[in-house]
Amino acid sequence: MAVGLSEPANPAPVGGIRLAACSAGIYRKQRLDMVLFEMSRDSGCAAVFTQNAFCAAPVQIARRHLAVIPHPRYLLINAGNANAGTGERGLFDARRTCEYLAEKGGCRPEEVLPFSTGVIGEYLPVDRLCQGVDAMLGRLDEHNWRDCSRAIMTTDTVAKSVSKQVVLDGRQVTLTGIAKGSGMIKPDMATMLAFIATDAQLDHGLMQSMLQQSVNRSFNRITVDGDTSTNDACVLVATGKSGVVIQAGNQERYSLFNAALHEICLDLAQAIIRDGEGASKYLSITVSGGRNSLDCLRTAYAIAESPLVKTACHASDPNWGRILAAVGRAGILDLEIGRVSIQVNDVCIVAKGMRTPEYTEDQGKRAMLQDEIFVTVDLGMGDAEETVWTCDLSAEYIRINAEYRT
Amino acid sequence: MAVGLSEPANPAPVGGIRLAACSAGIYRKQRLDMVLFEMSRDSGCAAVFTQNAFCAAPVQIARRHLAVIPHPRYLLINAGNANAGTGERGLFDARRTCEYLAEKGGCRPEEVLPFSTGVIGEYLPVDRLCQGVDAMLGRLDEHNWRDCSRAIMTTDTVAKSVSKQVVLDGRQVTLTGIAKGSGMIKPDMATMLAFIATDAQLDHGLMQSMLQQSVNRSFNRITVDGDTSTNDACVLVATGKSGVVIQAGNQERYSLFNAALHEICLDLAQAIIRDGEGASKYLSITVSGGRNSLDCLRTAYAIAESPLVKTACHASDPNWGRILAAVGRAGILDLEIGRVSIQVNDVCIVAKGMRTPEYTEDQGKRAMLQDEIFVTVDLGMGDAEETVWTCDLSAEYIRINAEYRT
Repeated sequence: MAVGLSEPANPAPVGGIRLAACSAGIYRKQRLDMVLFEMSRDSGCAAVFTQNAFCAAPVQIARRHLAVIPHPRYLLINAGNANAGTGERGLFDARRTCEYLAEKGGCRPEEVLPFSTGVIGEYLPVDRLCQGVDAMLGRLDEHNWRDCSRAIMTTDTVAKSVSKQVVLDGRQVTLTGIAKGSGMIKPDMATMLAFIATDAQLDHGLMQSMLQQSVNRSFNRITVDGDTSTNDACVLVATGKSGVVIQAGNQERYSLFNAALHEICLDLAQAIIRDGEGASKYLSITVSGGRNSLDCLRTAYAIAESPLVKTACHASDPNWGRILAAVGRAGILDLEIGRVSIQVNDVCIVAKGMRTPEYTEDQGKRAMLQDEIFVTVDLGMGDAEETVWTCDLSAEYIRINAEYRT
Repeated sequence: MAVGLSEPANPAPVGGIRLAACSAGIYRKQRLDMVLFEMSRDSGCAAVFTQNAFCAAPVQIARRHLAVIPHPRYLLINAGNANAGTGERGLFDARRTCEYLAEKGGCRPEEVLPFSTGVIGEYLPVDRLCQGVDAMLGRLDEHNWRDCSRAIMTTDTVAKSVSKQVVLDGRQVTLTGIAKGSGMIKPDMATMLAFIATDAQLDHGLMQSMLQQSVNRSFNRITVDGDTSTNDACVLVATGKSGVVIQAGNQERYSLFNAALHEICLDLAQAIIRDGEGASKYLSITVSGGRNSLDCLRTAYAIAESPLVKTACHASDPNWGRILAAVGRAGILDLEIGRVSIQVNDVCIVAKGMRTPEYTEDQGKRAMLQDEIFVTVDLGMGDAEETVWTCDLSAEYIRINAEYRT
């Protein structure tokens, strides 16, 4: 069902990163379900995590470890079990897997960051994870990105990865990222699981601020169902193996690298939407003419999270009254409805708060029949603009979420 | 599909109220689609309206008329066309129907309050409304409540009405109400269409404050899909024909009447949820132990509006991790997850932030298989408590909203 999305070719390897996937019997079906990233010594690392108060045990441990040592050697990931809502035992289990890997891999437990995704409320099968660690340590290789992008999937139907290469001062720098996500998607200051690596060299503070900025304009602008997961995380690793150093002082190098990083985040975030649970349409909602960014985002999310707008898109029904009603309930102070306009793809439906005289139902129908629907709302109040991405709501979404876990 | 809801017997007539319904060809199918209420002279009236910025033309006109003359003689209602998003022409059309009725009924146009519900963005077929007015003026009767409760339905599957009779100081007072609503339900300081009449006598200020309070704890505590309509309204009419005067000074009379009014509002609001689009389960979400009412409501709505919680309920799947994740993202400051408990019907699933040792999946399954699911969350932070009501999310909801209007 993914909209305009197919599995990319094997992503470009990143100097200093070796990785492996294996099938450890954690996911409910037999398939790849564990991933191990090994980073060369002194690699930098930045990360943003879910703001959900019930953040999972691995999120708590990863945060703590990164605070102690900002140069992790390993990322250890499993699908099929979120290790969330598991209390003290969950923390103990996550720590145990880190300790096991640290002993086998020759590092300190704090140099391992654990990540889990899957069912909430079940204890982690630690023995199977340890067996997986043994298997993966024996087959680390820099070309395993594709397998790893597959191993982290849950309800995803397409594995998500992207590579960019940029030449900075005559030297090639690679950025490669993988992500998973399909349902329970409304990242809040963080994201679903995404792992991005580069062979550029960056200091910790700069990495963290660049990642946070990119995430805010990509993963934090998508919603499938308005639900924020307990396990969201986005990690950026920089090995420095290309010899290119990114610093805020060198404006050109910084800008080019930053643009490439943002493209990676945006591509992965939009891939999550294209593969949203039950999605048959990809929706881009732009709100312009706002007094400020917050007003634009509020309005965009009111539309993007409206089940009525999403089902109308699913049915290719130009039921623009539902968009109008969503704008009206977004809580924008002093909204003058006589200034609002609404456009769907190239069809202007509403101007000055009401249907344009030229608009015909046929035009609306034609616009809504597209797989990719661009809704543009102008509030007529100012210069701010924001875009969020979402997908339609289908009976297939209900089926997936009524059947998942049962 | 309505959960535990069937059409009530013909509601009790209210002295001073005559009413009629007719089929005026406004709804897409041939059926009753207009209602006329006639109130005896000097009846009082209170009303609350949608807070949606795009409020429909009839809402704007009704508000204006009520401000000029707080003693309307007629309520004129149609289903099938919301007269929303119709700009100046919509206002003109709504006024024209009031003028027509005023002339035929012998009153001022400001003594008519218009209400519309149905498709957004289509112009009102004024001629048909006027024909409907002619037909209904000839058959006003105090026993027509049942027909009227049917005529205001849109995607409702069951007509909604309720009557209460209370004896105050030896005299019987009647309250009768009808309502419509099934989708686009998250009233914001108002409600879907609901019309309540009583033969008690109340002054305007007291009526308005009593209605607002009751609405806040009934219609403003329900959600089907989180969408707020452009046309919501709840009206209370008091004819005074019973001879019983309700005043704030007479505490006992006031309390008994207020309790009856609140029961009417709550019964109608819960009927809307039981008949929610595609509903197969009725969900009551109580959040206790909050620092304040707002924290409780935020948490309750985060659960009640989560598509994942709602699909799990639909599937009778005790996927309590989804409830936990919704609590976690509700944005409660300083939430201590180690104090949170979650109960579903009589089964305590989460205590101190994690699954209780005694809990078994079988217990959870048994609780979730009920048609009526009571979720209770204790935040462990204070004494505040709030309840909201919602329904499950089913493929039938998608079907209804993908097909409606097409």
